[in-house]
Amino acid sequence: MVYKLVLIDACFDPLSYYFFLNPHSIVNKKIHGIKNLVIFATSNSSYNHRQTMKLYKANIIFTREKDHFEVVEHGYVGVENGRVVDVASSADAFDQQPEEIIDYGDRLLIPAMNDMHVHAGQYRNQGISMDMELLEWLNNYTFPEEAKFSDTRYARRMYSRFVHDLWRFGTMRTATFATTHLESTRLLMELFREAGMGAMVGKVNMDCNSIDALLESVDEAVAANEALIAEWNDPDGLVRPIITPRFIPSCSSAMLRACGEQAQKYQVPVQSHLSENLGEIALVRELEPESRFYGDAYDRYGLFGQTPTIMAHCVFSEGEELELMRRRNVMVAHCPTSNINLITGIAPIRSFLDNGIKVGLGSDISGGHDMSIMRVMVYAIQQSKLYNQKYRDKHFLSLSEAFWIATKSAGSFFGRVGSFEPGYEFDALVIDDSSLNYGNYTLTQRLERFIYVGDDRHIAVRFCRGQEIPEPRILD
Amino acid sequence: MVYKLVLIDACFDPLSYYFFLNPHSIVNKKIHGIKNLVIFATSNSSYNHRQTMKLYKANIIFTREKDHFEVVEHGYVGVENGRVVDVASSADAFDQQPEEIIDYGDRLLIPAMNDMHVHAGQYRNQGISMDMELLEWLNNYTFPEEAKFSDTRYARRMYSRFVHDLWRFGTMRTATFATTHLESTRLLMELFREAGMGAMVGKVNMDCNSIDALLESVDEAVAANEALIAEWNDPDGLVRPIITPRFIPSCSSAMLRACGEQAQKYQVPVQSHLSENLGEIALVRELEPESRFYGDAYDRYGLFGQTPTIMAHCVFSEGEELELMRRRNVMVAHCPTSNINLITGIAPIRSFLDNGIKVGLGSDISGGHDMSIMRVMVYAIQQSKLYNQKYRDKHFLSLSEAFWIATKSAGSFFGRVGSFEPGYEFDALVIDDSSLNYGNYTLTQRLERFIYVGDDRHIAVRFCRGQEIPEPRILD
Repeated sequence: MVYKLVLIDACFDPLSYYFFLNPHSIVNKKIHGIKNLVIFATSNSSYNHRQTMKLYKANIIFTREKDHFEVVEHGYVGVENGRVVDVASSADAFDQQPEEIIDYGDRLLIPAMNDMHVHAGQYRNQGISMDMELLEWLNNYTFPEEAKFSDTRYARRMYSRFVHDLWRFGTMRTATFATTHLESTRLLMELFREAGMGAMVGKVNMDCNSIDALLESVDEAVAANEALIAEWNDPDGLVRPIITPRFIPSCSSAMLRACGEQAQKYQVPVQSHLSENLGEIALVRELEPESRFYGDAYDRYGLFGQTPTIMAHCVFSEGEELELMRRRNVMVAHCPTSNINLITGIAPIRSFLDNGIKVGLGSDISGGHDMSIMRVMVYAIQQSKLYNQKYRDKHFLSLSEAFWIATKSAGSFFGRVGSFEPGYEFDALVIDDSSLNYGNYTLTQRLERFIYVGDDRHIAVRFCRGQEIPEPRILD
Repeated sequence: MVYKLVLIDACFDPLSYYFFLNPHSIVNKKIHGIKNLVIFATSNSSYNHRQTMKLYKANIIFTREKDHFEVVEHGYVGVENGRVVDVASSADAFDQQPEEIIDYGDRLLIPAMNDMHVHAGQYRNQGISMDMELLEWLNNYTFPEEAKFSDTRYARRMYSRFVHDLWRFGTMRTATFATTHLESTRLLMELFREAGMGAMVGKVNMDCNSIDALLESVDEAVAANEALIAEWNDPDGLVRPIITPRFIPSCSSAMLRACGEQAQKYQVPVQSHLSENLGEIALVRELEPESRFYGDAYDRYGLFGQTPTIMAHCVFSEGEELELMRRRNVMVAHCPTSNINLITGIAPIRSFLDNGIKVGLGSDISGGHDMSIMRVMVYAIQQSKLYNQKYRDKHFLSLSEAFWIATKSAGSFFGRVGSFEPGYEFDALVIDDSSLNYGNYTLTQRLERFIYVGDDRHIAVRFCRGQEIPEPRILD
């Protein structure tokens, strides 16, 4: 039985049409922008004969709400046109005949990972140079490394490895900083496109407080951003540009203003760093004396939620800053590995959640040392425990909360990504945990062990937007 | 040129005879127990013709002192009778002709890892049940799991996997808790012997505050310990028993007294837990009102350095307790992963070092979640950074310090283990980091990346006491 959904007087969300295939899912949901809808039964319509839906059978685990897992043992996910039709415990529950049923046996099927903050241009420095705090570390290790990306051959070697590693660890969507260099940023975008993986890629903009090799004029920055926007800013594209002023200390007022204007003119999202380190915060106070707090400085330039915005770290965000983040729907990229490696501190992730602030996780290579968002989840839980030890009313993250943050909450930055609810893009990982599964574990324990003990060897298949993603090439 | 070393009036340390082969190494060393020595030149003696020394060629990295690495690019380690003859940058530097030169090309050669605190009987629970603090966690998750080891078939399945995982992560020496069960403890010891890996294995002793299935009488405990000591207590053996009262709250005074007496009677080492959790410390104060501090309770029963002793955690050890540990040469098994997972706190590792207290690292499965001592090193460094953020005079651990703790400092509990200095047992790992080595790294950066980014796939060959250790069998 297939229903056809007819919209009358609707300001139509372009994603909603996927509910065609399973209108049941509409009944219990609010869909914004659809004022009236009429459902006609059209069984035996042409929809019935297309048979373009695939069913994936496995032990399905995902989060709809942060407080618990949805678990369907030996269940089915229906996928059509790259999107989830629905999840059910029986193939008969779907109104369509599937084109194909792919049976993953006793494996787990979970949403793929999203990395909300990472520096592709620091990939070579992953796991080294862990002996300084942020500002010194940037000058001594990071800026000299990023300068190498003026050479596109070097960029090709590093970026192809970077994309390969994201793939390896099941990260299908990434918000990444490249470097200041236009050509190698373009190359990184091409590598993502070739891989079939989703990414928002930022050419870094900066015009002060760095080494000469990384500085650019405002005009150069604007022209480079403009070029990438012209080439890549397809709202349906998997790979898109994101306006990326490095952080306040690296940008003049003119640079920040230009970035904000471009973001709003072209409706391009924004990413940057916020309240990471006490030395940095003091410096921002000096550089932007008119701003009431660090986030306010971004806000005054139109870089704080005027278009969708990610701010990395936010370790010391509080009070007015948190309140503005909530109002402006700014997403925190929580980077617990980096925050500990660079002696930054422990971000108040429970406060983010309690205040209704969106959060995703970031590997933050190379402040962070681990590309695996599973491992970053573990660090997020662990650091929330240290926070809980200090502030007893701030309960530590549960596993489902960490998972929800890494998948559905983070994924919302890319559209409907990170869950298996109807209409979500099918970004998924098939987990073969057979080598870990010798102890009569429940399904959520198996997931927990994959996250805490497993690694990329346990990821058998990766999907992004419904497509199985083969191993990307490493280029030399 | 080979020298023969003749000992006159010597109370001879059984390890010293290896210096026969390279008397140069004696000159700069104190060798306890050798009062006089005469060296005759005996070139062309029979020693020259035995040719039993092997040379291993690779990029050699180890620590003699904690503050820096010894690095020999494309160097040689000479090994005879399971022990290091010396390290040199040329094969000609050795006085003997080698029987064989094994060339590992551009790979790294480092000392193997030592795990100073781990619960083999909790192996199944690795990576699950991370939502409680110590005392509740023991009652809810840990004791019921350990009770299963009354079944030797279950023990065989779990312990063979446990030993296999130690092997996988390059841990060649382990101080481990088994469970209270004699038969399965014996089985674990046999699995270690079969694998060729070094271990001190403790049958857990406990007679109160647990579930009935785990409680034993003092007489039963004494008889079981006695049996294992009779079978296994060869001072040269790779696998040896270690007296293991679980911790003060699990043991009556009679049990603690009996354990202390056995340790001293048979000169067997001791391991237990100390000052891990504030609730536990309060409980010990109640249970042992006559003890001035937690460590004093062990001390009064002869379990605090009267024979070589490991105390796990010591997160809240300070003042008199630290002072007694130093005096008694008690080794701390620092377990940073466990300390964060169970919301225990951050151990003052810099204070241990500053006070001259010996430290090793422990994975503490299943309070800890990661079997890799490399990863435990990373956590040790990271937690020392959090500590440093709070106490600015307590500098965080350098990489060489963490490495020294995990290898030479920990290894000292097993004899001369954990370094490549002359006379040390050759416990070593050959690291094939070629897949990580694309960025023009120095040798110590390559080691750092192996520790932070690599995993067991990068361990190509493992040696324990000079023997190459093949992959142990997993039994079902």
